[in-house]
Amino acid sequence: MSTPSPILIVGSMAFDDLDLPSGNARDVVGGSATYSALAASVFAPVRIVAVVGDDFPESTLDGLRARGIDTTGVERASGKTFRWAGRYDADLVHRTTLDTQLNVFADFKPKLPESVRATPLVLLGNIHPALQLDVLKQVDAPKLVVADTMNFWIMGEPQALAAMLARIDILIVNDEEARQLSGIHNIRRAAREILSRGPKRLVIKRGEHGALLFDEEGVFAAHGFPLEDEVDPTGAGDSFAGGFLGYLATQPLVTPLALRRAMVHGTATASFCVEAVGTTKVGSLSQSELETRVKAIRQLYEFGAHTM
Amino acid sequence: MSTPSPILIVGSMAFDDLDLPSGNARDVVGGSATYSALAASVFAPVRIVAVVGDDFPESTLDGLRARGIDTTGVERASGKTFRWAGRYDADLVHRTTLDTQLNVFADFKPKLPESVRATPLVLLGNIHPALQLDVLKQVDAPKLVVADTMNFWIMGEPQALAAMLARIDILIVNDEEARQLSGIHNIRRAAREILSRGPKRLVIKRGEHGALLFDEEGVFAAHGFPLEDEVDPTGAGDSFAGGFLGYLATQPLVTPLALRRAMVHGTATASFCVEAVGTTKVGSLSQSELETRVKAIRQLYEFGAHTM
Repeated sequence: MSTPSPILIVGSMAFDDLDLPSGNARDVVGGSATYSALAASVFAPVRIVAVVGDDFPESTLDGLRARGIDTTGVERASGKTFRWAGRYDADLVHRTTLDTQLNVFADFKPKLPESVRATPLVLLGNIHPALQLDVLKQVDAPKLVVADTMNFWIMGEPQALAAMLARIDILIVNDEEARQLSGIHNIRRAAREILSRGPKRLVIKRGEHGALLFDEEGVFAAHGFPLEDEVDPTGAGDSFAGGFLGYLATQPLVTPLALRRAMVHGTATASFCVEAVGTTKVGSLSQSELETRVKAIRQLYEFGAHTM
Repeated sequence: MSTPSPILIVGSMAFDDLDLPSGNARDVVGGSATYSALAASVFAPVRIVAVVGDDFPESTLDGLRARGIDTTGVERASGKTFRWAGRYDADLVHRTTLDTQLNVFADFKPKLPESVRATPLVLLGNIHPALQLDVLKQVDAPKLVVADTMNFWIMGEPQALAAMLARIDILIVNDEEARQLSGIHNIRRAAREILSRGPKRLVIKRGEHGALLFDEEGVFAAHGFPLEDEVDPTGAGDSFAGGFLGYLATQPLVTPLALRRAMVHGTATASFCVEAVGTTKVGSLSQSELETRVKAIRQLYEFGAHTM
C-alpha cells in the first residue's frame, strides 16, 4: 500500500437535533464535512474547509485534529453554527426536517488556506454548486474531484450545477436525486444521462440497499450491510463518501477495481455510522474494524468460483 | 450436473388486467403457479397443481406442456378462471389492486393426481396455509419444501400459518411480509424471529433491490440486476421462487453454496420476468440466456481477490 494521499473536504459543520426511534438527541455535532472527514481520516490525512460559529467548542475541533484532520481551513465566524433538526420515522428511512437555521453557513465563502491548496484529492460536499466551483479554482491541479449535491440545487441552480458537473470526476447522489437530475426514473438510463453531462463516474446511493457505481466498466453494486442495530442514519451518505474517497487515497491509481473496492469500503463505513447516534461510531473507527466489515460484506455476496 | 429432480408447484392460475406505465394489457395469463412453473421449467421437469375455469384456453395449457410442464394436476372447474386487475405507478414499485375475482379459485382444494405424489421438490405457492399443509400431506416424503405466503394469511390465519411454517424447509416472503409476520422492523432480527418458528432457511425478497437469504451460514445478498427496460413486475416474485427452486433441482445436495447460487439464479429469472408483459419473457427463456445474466450479476459484485 502506498502512502495515502491527503484529501481536501469542503462542506458543512453543524449541530443537529435528532428525534430518533431510540430517543431524542440534542446538539449532536454533525454536518456533511464532519462526517466525511471523520470517515476519510480512517484511511488518509484530511484537510477540512468549513465554517463554524462562536458556539462551536474548540474541544470538538481538537477531537477532529486527534483523528489526523487538519482544521486550518475551518473558519470561525461571528454568530451561531448551522443547526438542523429532524425527526425519523420508526423505519429510519423517512425523515422530516423540523428546522433549519443556516446561521454562519448562509454566508460561507470557502477560502482555502495556502497550506491546503495543493491537496490531490478533493471532496466537494453538498454546498451551492457555484461555491463548489469556486473551491475547485482554488485547488492546484487536483488529481481526483468527487462532488455531492442535493435536490435543492438540482431544482434551484441547474446552470451552476451543470458547470460544476462538467468539472468533476465522480458525482455521488442518492437515487431520488439521480432521478430528479436526469428526469428519468429508470436508474440505469438516469445514470447514462447524468454521465453525459460531464462526470466520468457516477455513484448512486440507495440507503440501506447500498450503492451503485456506473463507470467505464459498466455497473457495480455494493450491497448495504444488513445491520442488527440501526440507530441513526444521519450522515451515512457523507460517511460513505468519506470512506469511498479515503480508500481511493490509499491506492496508487484510480482503476476500475480500486473504485469497486472503494464502493465496498464506503458502504462499510456508512454501516458503522448508522449503528450509533451522530459521529459516535464513525469518529472512533479503526482501519481493522473497517476491514473486518469489508470481509463480512464480501461474504454477503460470496457464491463460489466462476464455474457453476 | 446431475439429472434435474422434478418439481411440484401448487398455486394460482389467472387472467390479469394490467395498467402499466407502458400501456394497458388485458386478459394476460398469470397466477403464481404459472409464473413459478415457467421459471422452474428452464431447469427441471415441473408438475403443476392448480385450477382453471371453462374460459381458460387449452392452447395455453399446451404452451405450458411445450415447456416440459406436466399439467395433469390442473383441474378444469365449471365457472370462470381467477381474475386480478391492478394498476402500477410510474415507478413500477407501488401498485393498486383494482379488482379481484376469485371465481373457481375460491373453492380450490388441491387434489394431487397419483402420478405427481412422489415429487421430491415442492413449491407451495401463495394459497391458504391450511391448503398448503393439505398439499404436503398428499406428497410422499418430499425432499425439500419451499413455501410462499402473503399479508392476507399473516393477518387472517396466524394459526394455520404457524402450522405450515413448522413443516417447511424454506420460506420465501417479501420484506413487508417478513416485518408483518415477525412484528419486527429490522430485517436481520425479523429473520431470526421467523426462523425460530420452523423454516430452516428464509428468503426475503426486496423487489428491484434483490433478495436476502438467511441460513446456517448467516446472510447472503443477491443483488437485483439493474435493468434498462422495466416493463411489468407482475409475477417477478413467483419467477424468483421458480428459478430458485429450479436451480436447486439441478443440484445433488442443498448445500449453503447451492442455496446461494439458487438465489442468484432466482434473481436472474425475476429480472427477465420484469422485462416484458406477463409471462412473455419468462415463458420463453433458455438456460443459456439465464446463465449469461447470472454472469452479468456476478460481474455486478466482482471486486477482485480476497487480498485488498
